[in-house]
Amino acid sequence: MTDAELYPVSRLSAVQQATAQAGLDALLLTPGPDLRYVSGYEALPLERLTCLVVPASGESFMMVPRLELPAAQASPASRLGLDFVAWDETDDPYAVVASRLGRVGTVGLADRMWAMASLRFRDAMPGTEQVLAGSVLRELRMRKSRVEVDALREAGAAIDAVHRLVPGFLKAGRTEREVGKDIHDAILAAGHATVDFVIVASGPNGASPHHEVSDRVIQPGEPVVVDIGGQFHSGYCSDSTRTYCVGEPPADFAEYYAVLRAAQDAACAAVRPGVSCESIDAAARDVIASAGFGSYFIHRTGHGIGIETHEEPYIVSGNTEVLEPGFAFSVEPGIYLPGRHGARIEDIVVCTADGGERLNNTTRDLVIV
Amino acid sequence: MTDAELYPVSRLSAVQQATAQAGLDALLLTPGPDLRYVSGYEALPLERLTCLVVPASGESFMMVPRLELPAAQASPASRLGLDFVAWDETDDPYAVVASRLGRVGTVGLADRMWAMASLRFRDAMPGTEQVLAGSVLRELRMRKSRVEVDALREAGAAIDAVHRLVPGFLKAGRTEREVGKDIHDAILAAGHATVDFVIVASGPNGASPHHEVSDRVIQPGEPVVVDIGGQFHSGYCSDSTRTYCVGEPPADFAEYYAVLRAAQDAACAAVRPGVSCESIDAAARDVIASAGFGSYFIHRTGHGIGIETHEEPYIVSGNTEVLEPGFAFSVEPGIYLPGRHGARIEDIVVCTADGGERLNNTTRDLVIV
Repeated sequence: MTDAELYPVSRLSAVQQATAQAGLDALLLTPGPDLRYVSGYEALPLERLTCLVVPASGESFMMVPRLELPAAQASPASRLGLDFVAWDETDDPYAVVASRLGRVGTVGLADRMWAMASLRFRDAMPGTEQVLAGSVLRELRMRKSRVEVDALREAGAAIDAVHRLVPGFLKAGRTEREVGKDIHDAILAAGHATVDFVIVASGPNGASPHHEVSDRVIQPGEPVVVDIGGQFHSGYCSDSTRTYCVGEPPADFAEYYAVLRAAQDAACAAVRPGVSCESIDAAARDVIASAGFGSYFIHRTGHGIGIETHEEPYIVSGNTEVLEPGFAFSVEPGIYLPGRHGARIEDIVVCTADGGERLNNTTRDLVIV
Repeated sequence: MTDAELYPVSRLSAVQQATAQAGLDALLLTPGPDLRYVSGYEALPLERLTCLVVPASGESFMMVPRLELPAAQASPASRLGLDFVAWDETDDPYAVVASRLGRVGTVGLADRMWAMASLRFRDAMPGTEQVLAGSVLRELRMRKSRVEVDALREAGAAIDAVHRLVPGFLKAGRTEREVGKDIHDAILAAGHATVDFVIVASGPNGASPHHEVSDRVIQPGEPVVVDIGGQFHSGYCSDSTRTYCVGEPPADFAEYYAVLRAAQDAACAAVRPGVSCESIDAAARDVIASAGFGSYFIHRTGHGIGIETHEEPYIVSGNTEVLEPGFAFSVEPGIYLPGRHGARIEDIVVCTADGGERLNNTTRDLVIV
C-alpha cells in the first residue's frame, strides 16, 4: 500500500463535494486524523497554526508556519496541487485564513482542533458558525476503501503476531510492567510506527477495563487481560485483546469466560450490511445478561477503527447507524468482577458484502500459560 | 520531587482565585497540560469526556467516564478532595456539567480542548461565552516554583547526558535515522518518560529548522544540528540543541557558527527580571543581523517550557511580557543557509532574582567528531 493508494488525490474533491452537500462552506483541518485522512500529511500538533482549508468549491490551500514548510512540501499533501501559504513568526495566520476565505456562513472544524485555534478562528471570523468537520468526514471515514481495509488487515496481522509472543512473556513472579515492556518492544518490532496502548491487567486489575500496567507481581492461577495496539506506518491502527491465565484458572472464571466467548462470537456473527450498530452491541450483551453477568459488562461493545484507534461508528446502545460494507470496528465484550478478576476478548471486524471478516485470528480459547 | 510538591493541593485554590480575578465563572479542563498542571492527573486524551470543572467559587468536580474512574482515583487528583462524577456509556456528560454548574456567563476552556468537546459544551451551555483557560493559567504556569525549576533542572541535566553521548553516535556513513534511533534510546535511558522529538539534520537538512530525521547518509565534513528533548516522569520537559561537525567544517560554516555562539550568549546574558521577552529576542537577533546573517535567522529566539515543551512566554518580536523570577524558556537562535547547512544552539534558561541560570551546560564550542 502506497500513500498514493491510501490517501488518494481524488479524496480532496470527494471531501469538497461532501462539504457542499452538508451545507458547509469550508472545512478547517488542523493537525490530527482529519488532516491526515484528507491529505496524507502527518503534521506535528504545535502551537503554531497548520491548517488545511477546504472550501466547498474553489481552491483549497494550506496555512503552514514557514518552519514547517519543508515538512509539508515533503508530505503526501504536496500531490494535491495545493497552494502552501507560509506564515512568519509575527503574522496572524487566523486573519489570513479569514481574509482568503472571505465571508462564509458555516465552517467545519477538525474534531481534534485545539481550543487555542478554534476560539481564534471564531474571533477572526465573526458571524461564522462553527460545527464539527466530523459531521462531513465521518461519512467518508466510516466507509473504508479496499486499500484501507488492507491496511487494517496488515496492522491486525502484526498485532496477532505480538499476541502469539505473549505466552512467552507472561510468568508468575514478573510484574505487569515488565511484561508490558516486552510487549511494547514486540509491537514496534512487528512493524508498528507507534505503540498506542499496552494493558496488562492481572488478577483484580483485570476488573478495571482501562487499567494499563503497574508494578503488581503476577501470581500463579491468575487471569491476565492483555489489550494492545499501535499505529502502523500506513497510519492505520491495530487493537486486539486476549485474556490469558497463568496456570489453572479459578472455577468461576472458567465459567464466565465461556459465556464471554459465546457473546463475542454472537456479536461477530451478527455483522452484516443493514444491521444497526446497537444491535451488534445487543447481540453480545444479551448472551452475557442471559447468563446472569449483565451488570458486570460495564462498557459498550466496540468502537470504529481506522487512522484513529477510536472513531465512528461506536457499537453502543442508542446508535442506530446501519452497517455498510467497509465499516470497521472492534467487538470487545468484557466481564469484570470487582476486586477479583476480569476477561475481555476483542477482534477488529470489517463489514463485507454479506457478513463480517475478523482481522484478528489468534485463538479465542483461554490460553493457559 | 514528589507529586505532592510538583502539583500541590494548594494550587487548586490559587487557580480558583485567579479565575475569579479574571472575571471567569469556571474553568473546564479536559486531558492535557492544563489539567495536569492543576490536578497532577495525566489523563489519556479520549473521545469519552474527562473534565475537571473548577468554578470561581464553590466545589470543583471531575466528570470522568466510569471506565476511567479507577485511573482518576489512583492519580494525584484524588488528593484534592474532589467529587468524581462517573458517567455511563449512554449518558450525556456535557449536559451533566452544564446542569451542575448552573447558568454561568464565561467559562475558560483548556487550551488544548478538542473541538469535539468545546462545541458540545457550547451547545450544552447556550449564552455562555467561551474563552481560553490559558488567559488565567498562563499567569500561574509561567511563574515556576522552586520545585518546578528543580524538575526542569533534572530534565535539563538528563538531556545534557544524552548530548555527551552524541559524538559517539555521529559518524560519516551512518544515516540520520540510525543516529536518531540511538539518541531516542538514550533519552529514555536517561530517565525521560517519553521522547518528544529527535532532530538529526545533516548538511543541507540542517537548513530546515524542523527537519526530523531521514535516510540521508551523513557525509564527511558536514555540520549536523541535533535538537532533542523529552518529558520526564515529573511531567517537566527537556529541550537542548547542539551543532556538531563530522570532521573539519566548511570555512564559511565556522565563521557564522562563531556569530551564532556570540548571539546565543548575548541573549542568555540579557536575561533578568524586568526585561521584556522581545528584548531577549532582539539581543540575539541584533548580533546575527550586525554580522550580515539576519535574513538567515528565520524563527523566533525561543519558547517557554514546563509541562509543555512549547508554552508561554514566547521569546519573539512583539511580545512585551516582562520577565520575572521563575520564567523558564529556550534561547535558541539559528542560522540557516538554504541548500547548504545550518546551525542552532539552544539552552533552557530560567530567570532568577538577578539574572538567568542556564539549565543546559554541555559545551557550546563546535564539537568536531
